Amino acid sequence: MTETVPRPTLEAVAARAGVSRATVSRVVNGSDGVREPLAERVRQAVDELGYVPNQAARSLVTKRHDAVAVIVAEPETRVFADPFFARQLRGISKELTAHDNQLVLLLTEDRDDHVRVGRYLAGGHVDGALVFSLHIDDPLPELIQRAGLPTVFGGRPDFNGGRGGVSYVDSDNRGGARDAVRHLLGLGRRRVAHITGALDQTSAVDRHDGYRDVMADADPRLVARGDFTPASGERAMRELLGRHPGLDAVFAANDLMAAGALRVLREHGRRVPEDVAVVGFDDMLPIAEQTEPPLTTVRQDIEEMGRLMARLLLRDLDHTGTPEETSGARPDGLILPTTLIRRSSA
Amino acid sequence: MTETVPRPTLEAVAARAGVSRATVSRVVNGSDGVREPLAERVRQAVDELGYVPNQAARSLVTKRHDAVAVIVAEPETRVFADPFFARQLRGISKELTAHDNQLVLLLTEDRDDHVRVGRYLAGGHVDGALVFSLHIDDPLPELIQRAGLPTVFGGRPDFNGGRGGVSYVDSDNRGGARDAVRHLLGLGRRRVAHITGALDQTSAVDRHDGYRDVMADADPRLVARGDFTPASGERAMRELLGRHPGLDAVFAANDLMAAGALRVLREHGRRVPEDVAVVGFDDMLPIAEQTEPPLTTVRQDIEEMGRLMARLLLRDLDHTGTPEETSGARPDGLILPTTLIRRSSA
Repeated sequence: MTETVPRPTLEAVAARAGVSRATVSRVVNGSDGVREPLAERVRQAVDELGYVPNQAARSLVTKRHDAVAVIVAEPETRVFADPFFARQLRGISKELTAHDNQLVLLLTEDRDDHVRVGRYLAGGHVDGALVFSLHIDDPLPELIQRAGLPTVFGGRPDFNGGRGGVSYVDSDNRGGARDAVRHLLGLGRRRVAHITGALDQTSAVDRHDGYRDVMADADPRLVARGDFTPASGERAMRELLGRHPGLDAVFAANDLMAAGALRVLREHGRRVPEDVAVVGFDDMLPIAEQTEPPLTTVRQDIEEMGRLMARLLLRDLDHTGTPEETSGARPDGLILPTTLIRRSSA
Repeated sequence: MTETVPRPTLEAVAARAGVSRATVSRVVNGSDGVREPLAERVRQAVDELGYVPNQAARSLVTKRHDAVAVIVAEPETRVFADPFFARQLRGISKELTAHDNQLVLLLTEDRDDHVRVGRYLAGGHVDGALVFSLHIDDPLPELIQRAGLPTVFGGRPDFNGGRGGVSYVDSDNRGGARDAVRHLLGLGRRRVAHITGALDQTSAVDRHDGYRDVMADADPRLVARGDFTPASGERAMRELLGRHPGLDAVFAANDLMAAGALRVLREHGRRVPEDVAVVGFDDMLPIAEQTEPPLTTVRQDIEEMGRLMARLLLRDLDHTGTPEETSGARPDGLILPTTLIRRSSA
């Protein structure tokens, strides 16, 4: 809109209600000490004029914006291409909405933009931050820390945050990976390959560690690096078939890469699961049900992770400054269990 | 993070540089009037201490937050399910990033949340708003107007905004629809059906009008309502086949619905394009290339629309208050042309 109706002012409300500016301010900011008939008159004037309190001024009093920033430490293009993020955002959105907090998603093109994100966070526009998909050496955590904002991470960060610790929600990535590989061994497979996720992220490192817990003596050429994208799953599968044509099973660190691996196996005439059994990670629907054959995978409850991140943060915001919270009495990391889901691929 | 390093204060910077608070404030806020060697000393102290200016205070001076809100007037789930939004956001994100403005995406669960969005917009957290996918009777425009924020809409809104007019970017929906239907007639088709989009949105109304411009005398039962989702395309196609088994062409108001219609036609043993020719709208890749058969469609440059929305808004922000801009001298609506893309379906 190039032209806008002038906003009704505090003064206009005061005049309409026949009270002082200070009285209007007190009522609008929800402080006590204004007698009821007077307070009611102010509220009526607010309604009649459609007065919207200046939140910047209001939040100087309440110290709350009722808004939470969400930062996905990935380029905007990946945020929309990988359904993992949509699912986590869904959980966050539901929880924040239930508490009448605005979800403020800060999108970026690349890591250079994180400085600008830090500036916005420091600007007093949100009460706290939810951050996911951190990569090692990302400048974001330090920028957020400087901004002085309560933060909950999705996925274990690779630093401990000093004395106070770091709040995060994660899945049992290592345990889930162990379950996947043990399941493959239980089917009688012996040459179990692994396609890793982006190894600058703890989720990928933990799943790789889980694979190695079970396959400690395996040929290292059975491991190929991916980065969680479908294309990287295809590439890694080709690499593995070239290096190790006798492999009889693959554990991929997420379902998108497993789907890519299935395409390449089909291309090479390998039957799944007869020749090569495949297990993914995530249980990303509908993808995991629509692959050929449908994918056996390790389920993590991504939406619930998002919901819990939001819940932890809102609890932090409600308790800021109480001694129990700041002394680190509560657990820093909340780890959700995973479940192996059997379909046809293994 | 439950614990954070205390933020360096303005006072600390002043002490380090050996100047007054007022001098630091002037330098940080980019105002003139501080001699160079002094200003340089302040900048050095800012760097050394890692001082982040309090943007809330700073923006009281500069009146700019270097942040722009984007609101998609759809539930968060649809924002992530329909690639149209990702594409428009990509254009917006590129343009805002190029101008070092933060993209602040405000997500909602449903229309009830628009009041909360209005509150955030009125709170002095952003310089302007980009709004798309408005539905008729949506309270958002009024809430934004009350917030007093410069706004550019994606898609023509169904109101004119009063004297000042409304800034928007749109595609030539009506012209594109005419092209689609004329193409079908040019192929010798006579019983051309139409699957509409959500008719509480101007894009759907305009495409329907374009269809009627060419098919003024057509049987009204050749038109079935959809809502832009793939499921609605399937439903509408079934309805049309039931009502009008002799139809020989379909123009669907977007590619997602056209893809749904193709599935239903295949199910019913109708060959495309031999028995029924199908044209979509959007040229949404890769979908439009991957349907069976690949889809003939009306291309609109969605990413460019996003880019232009951001550009128009940034121009507005740079010129606020200059008479040429507020007198409505520049065009309110920017309409981009569409192109018919021929593939195999028609």
